[in-house]
Amino acid sequence: MIRFECDYSEGAHPEVLRRLQETNLEQTPGYGEDCHCANAAAMIKKLCGREDIAVHFLVGGTQTNTTVIKAALRPHQGVICPVSGHINIHESGAIESTGHKVLALPSHDGKITAEQIKRAWREHWEDATHEHMVQPGMVYISNSTESGLIYTLSELTAISEVCHECGLLLYVDGARLGYAMAAPGNDITFADMARLTDAFYIGGTKQGALFGEALVISNPALNKDFRYLIKQQGGMLAKGRLLGIQFEALLENDLYGQLSRKAVGQALRIMAAFAGKGYPQLFKSYTNQQFPILPDEKMKKLAEKYAFSYWQRVDENHSAVRFCTGWATTEEQVSQLIADIEAL
Amino acid sequence: MIRFECDYSEGAHPEVLRRLQETNLEQTPGYGEDCHCANAAAMIKKLCGREDIAVHFLVGGTQTNTTVIKAALRPHQGVICPVSGHINIHESGAIESTGHKVLALPSHDGKITAEQIKRAWREHWEDATHEHMVQPGMVYISNSTESGLIYTLSELTAISEVCHECGLLLYVDGARLGYAMAAPGNDITFADMARLTDAFYIGGTKQGALFGEALVISNPALNKDFRYLIKQQGGMLAKGRLLGIQFEALLENDLYGQLSRKAVGQALRIMAAFAGKGYPQLFKSYTNQQFPILPDEKMKKLAEKYAFSYWQRVDENHSAVRFCTGWATTEEQVSQLIADIEAL
Amino acid sequence: MIRFECDYSEGAHPEVLRRLQETNLEQTPGYGEDCHCANAAAMIKKLCGREDIAVHFLVGGTQTNTTVIKAALRPHQGVICPVSGHINIHESGAIESTGHKVLALPSHDGKITAEQIKRAWREHWEDATHEHMVQPGMVYISNSTESGLIYTLSELTAISEVCHECGLLLYVDGARLGYAMAAPGNDITFADMARLTDAFYIGGTKQGALFGEALVISNPALNKDFRYLIKQQGGMLAKGRLLGIQFEALLENDLYGQLSRKAVGQALRIMAAFAGKGYPQLFKSYTNQQFPILPDEKMKKLAEKYAFSYWQRVDENHSAVRFCTGWATTEEQVSQLIADIEAL
Amino acid sequence: MIRFECDYSEGAHPEVLRRLQETNLEQTPGYGEDCHCANAAAMIKKLCGREDIAVHFLVGGTQTNTTVIKAALRPHQGVICPVSGHINIHESGAIESTGHKVLALPSHDGKITAEQIKRAWREHWEDATHEHMVQPGMVYISNSTESGLIYTLSELTAISEVCHECGLLLYVDGARLGYAMAAPGNDITFADMARLTDAFYIGGTKQGALFGEALVISNPALNKDFRYLIKQQGGMLAKGRLLGIQFEALLENDLYGQLSRKAVGQALRIMAAFAGKGYPQLFKSYTNQQFPILPDEKMKKLAEKYAFSYWQRVDENHSAVRFCTGWATTEEQVSQLIADIEAL
Repeated sequence: MIRFECDYSEGAHPEVLRRLQETNLEQTPGYGEDCHCANAAAMIKKLCGREDIAVHFLVGGTQTNTTVIKAALRPHQGVICPVSGHINIHESGAIESTGHKVLALPSHDGKITAEQIKRAWREHWEDATHEHMVQPGMVYISNSTESGLIYTLSELTAISEVCHECGLLLYVDGARLGYAMAAPGNDITFADMARLTDAFYIGGTKQGALFGEALVISNPALNKDFRYLIKQQGGMLAKGRLLGIQFEALLENDLYGQLSRKAVGQALRIMAAFAGKGYPQLFKSYTNQQFPILPDEKMKKLAEKYAFSYWQRVDENHSAVRFCTGWATTEEQVSQLIADIEAL
Repeated sequence: MIRFECDYSEGAHPEVLRRLQETNLEQTPGYGEDCHCANAAAMIKKLCGREDIAVHFLVGGTQTNTTVIKAALRPHQGVICPVSGHINIHESGAIESTGHKVLALPSHDGKITAEQIKRAWREHWEDATHEHMVQPGMVYISNSTESGLIYTLSELTAISEVCHECGLLLYVDGARLGYAMAAPGNDITFADMARLTDAFYIGGTKQGALFGEALVISNPALNKDFRYLIKQQGGMLAKGRLLGIQFEALLENDLYGQLSRKAVGQALRIMAAFAGKGYPQLFKSYTNQQFPILPDEKMKKLAEKYAFSYWQRVDENHSAVRFCTGWATTEEQVSQLIADIEAL
Repeated sequence: MIRFECDYSEGAHPEVLRRLQETNLEQTPGYGEDCHCANAAAMIKKLCGREDIAVHFLVGGTQTNTTVIKAALRPHQGVICPVSGHINIHESGAIESTGHKVLALPSHDGKITAEQIKRAWREHWEDATHEHMVQPGMVYISNSTESGLIYTLSELTAISEVCHECGLLLYVDGARLGYAMAAPGNDITFADMARLTDAFYIGGTKQGALFGEALVISNPALNKDFRYLIKQQGGMLAKGRLLGIQFEALLENDLYGQLSRKAVGQALRIMAAFAGKGYPQLFKSYTNQQFPILPDEKMKKLAEKYAFSYWQRVDENHSAVRFCTGWATTEEQVSQLIADIEAL
Repeated sequence: MIRFECDYSEGAHPEVLRRLQETNLEQTPGYGEDCHCANAAAMIKKLCGREDIAVHFLVGGTQTNTTVIKAALRPHQGVICPVSGHINIHESGAIESTGHKVLALPSHDGKITAEQIKRAWREHWEDATHEHMVQPGMVYISNSTESGLIYTLSELTAISEVCHECGLLLYVDGARLGYAMAAPGNDITFADMARLTDAFYIGGTKQGALFGEALVISNPALNKDFRYLIKQQGGMLAKGRLLGIQFEALLENDLYGQLSRKAVGQALRIMAAFAGKGYPQLFKSYTNQQFPILPDEKMKKLAEKYAFSYWQRVDENHSAVRFCTGWATTEEQVSQLIADIEAL
């Protein structure tokens, strides 16, 4: 069985492991106050072209999302997000568990627009009974989205401007930020991310690390006392250095970018193979997640040899499925899959 | 200005005030452990035809909803409700503030069906990643609904059976339960409510009391330690007797039913007047809330003399509005309104 | 049985009831946005000698404490209070239910000092691992305390200055503020309260109202969006005017002060009677709560005719008990009690 | 600088790293549903001599404590623990952030007794106002404690029996369970732990793993839906296998026990050296944490060459400090320290 099921089926890129091995007997202070975290943070500040941002390393995405949103909102505030946002549907109610409503906006493709945000905000404040409703306090989007799409610089700029205008914080879930940046058509840089958002994270778990996310906070008010919140939310790793060391490995010589570009390239070849057979995409993705719509019997055929995710029924005889590539996907795996698609 | 804006514009029915006056200098224990609460509870048990239920008196509806739902759910569970449910849109995120997601189901008229509940429950458990999603744990409906509609006995029975089958608790918000029971077509009794639900409340605030809701809990597991939760949620009135006394007054000689029937009768006459002019209803309500759709200029004309609630825009020239009657609405107010409707 | 058990055994002062009766059929907007709340708020602003404060009316004390503390603290912060503080021991964990630790300081008499607060704050920040501990964010004290004692102006000023210096908010629970102000030796005015605290409340429930507390917020940052929080916490009374009307009644012609002084005078006579028999006080109270230490057999004798609260065992043969007076205590009740004490 | 500061200064035991390396390219399902987690769980069940227990792997201790306690308690319940318990003082209010009060019992040495628990429970239920207080629902202890002490089998049995009798759940924080079991005088086995507690965890982070704790739940009611709670609390590692693999390495051939015994042996030699110089212990520890009381000038002398933790001032000229050994402590480090102690 060859797995295209998700982008976290394997361990870590060998360079990451090599560094963990190499530094294993170093004695360092705990909780992220070590030299490796400091160094990785410095590398990220350089990537973002700014010294005046804060960088924190957390273990996983749900933890990072929950900690940021909890830190940002007052008790009566909620977080706007697309209905398909990870925080709305796949975190077991983690956001609500900290007391906050997720204010889901409709979205057919996992993205939302500046106009939608503005309208939701206006509707709140124009309602005569708004004190009886949850007040929007933050906007959460993912880049790339759960559907593989990316935001363009002009879209993100528009969202950022609306947020600024409405007093909403903007936070971007970057679990797959590398894959987004490797997509053809991407025109967003790390510096843009730091400039246009209050916080975003650079995903490690799905991008070559064993685990770990690098959270960048540009808004000093949001960063105030942030480490208390990481600790309270259970996200402060005792041996915090493990996070710093992994990001050092990923960011040196742009390994992060290389791995992302390779995986996206592979995904695009798979997409082309499906397209060549006339199978349309559920979402118009140019990143490492592809969502072909297949006749059910062809889907079953592929399932004999490949693991992939069932996404949704499309019609009586067709289903959308998800194929993921990742840092560990090999050329052989992709070539074999393509051959099998062509032979369907 | 004559107010048909809501059903809580005035104080309390004179009999309620008379009793408060009469008992004013009695010395009683606090926190609902007095003879009036005991007596009112006994009256409610009799109404429900059962001794094996618990009755608690709380000050308001949001408090009651929050306390019940918080008591019922484990941390990873959420409460299913119609998208228009009071807990979903008009309680400032009170439910989420206790850590639980509101799982809103679509509804065009404020009601949901047993089938919808069953489907939502099945979809949760059939999803391979259900452990990453909020588990449905309870169903919340209102009777009458926020749109003035009522559930029939067969609808409520179906919902109750589905809940039972799926291991979901069923809770009914009865802020306007009296008005529901007074509606033509209602075939639900207090005994049905106690039998078919795990908990429901008999609204006092909108039904003739100064304030207060009588919560009935039929499920002993839900009732365990319930008074701790009332206290924690800030709902345990020091002079709890004030609640007992008011419900004694309302329930004696069926004052509660009389006031409800009078108000519903008035509302139906108002509805008939609008219908006579050819103005349709937004929701097919037979209770004390009426939602006529009016041409905007007619709406403006009425607004010169009457206070009512703007509900929503229907088309370029028409709006839906809400007229409420209540225990305090006088025949003169209604007659005058009808005359003015007829003259529109 | 004559009850000296607590200060909330009866209903309300007759003038309060008279006003509720008188205004009963007025039609007003709900949720505290009526003319009576506005008027009562204006009276309180005048009492405090300031226009730039906010006044909110809530139903009860636990609700008020919880709402203020929830509004004030960020998630990693806790509230400093004396170990005997109401929020620490008698609110069923209401504060913790909103996510915040109560940081209890030792106190033998229910009071804490500026020095204790300063020390707790300093110890937090000097600890190398303070990010792993709950950060003090607010100070809660009661005046009068649960033990009947009062703070002097110089004590309150010192606490206020330390709070200011340390960036801690100061909140005073005034469930019995009237009784505190009526105590011999009190030198604190409402204006002092507004000037020295970020928020405090003027208790109604234990001071002549049916229910209700008037919350005064001097700190505009704390007041931001405060009504959302009242609603979320279940404290926004639909017929909010009931609170406004009661405070109008209590504050007009200083009824509030008169009732407080009468009750405190009665309590001091009772204290003198116990002292005359050689029974010492557990706490040196000059307010409406008195805590004599009695030989057990004398205690039992009094208990045949009077209801009072058992407080704590003092030694093998002695117990401390609590006698409370209130707005409703009559001269006859007090005279009879004194006669019986003298005859012990 | 040689570090005896804590037991998490280095990475992981080489065997742990070797296994991570070896399995790196295996493709497995995520979130702990892989064969390594299954295998490690089976090993733990065997250690405990039982099949009918559940094993979950989480990343860190605060996360594990918070998830268990949140899963166990209803909203009005709190967790009893010694005042020095990790959850009470060193988790940034994580427990309170889930809504629960920590009910701290006095303890001079980090342990509490069955009698104390029974008394706290009885005092709660005997208080006439217990509904206004937080109800004890669970007991939390650590073994070894934060002060290095261990519970004997008879002590743990007594606590377990009291918990059973009082309807309290019992949870043991085993961050340093291996070191406890390696202590001279220990008579508790893994099977005892599973039999006497509702849940406990076998610490990995401080015992040779990169990170990770193995939670054992013997109480099926507590285990119900537990994985939802792990996810909600942010503790469900995407590449869950990393936890399984590490515990496979630690548990095979009792590496866990060997590392623990070695570190405890080293600690006892250090203790003996201090004792030989006449320096008493703050806590009578026989585990890997030692708390000698040193004259301040001797402490300063040692601090020139060794990193250790300052614990507390004892008198004007003496301080208690903490020396920790761990899996990575070398014989050379210990011998050098002992030589320097002897030369003090």
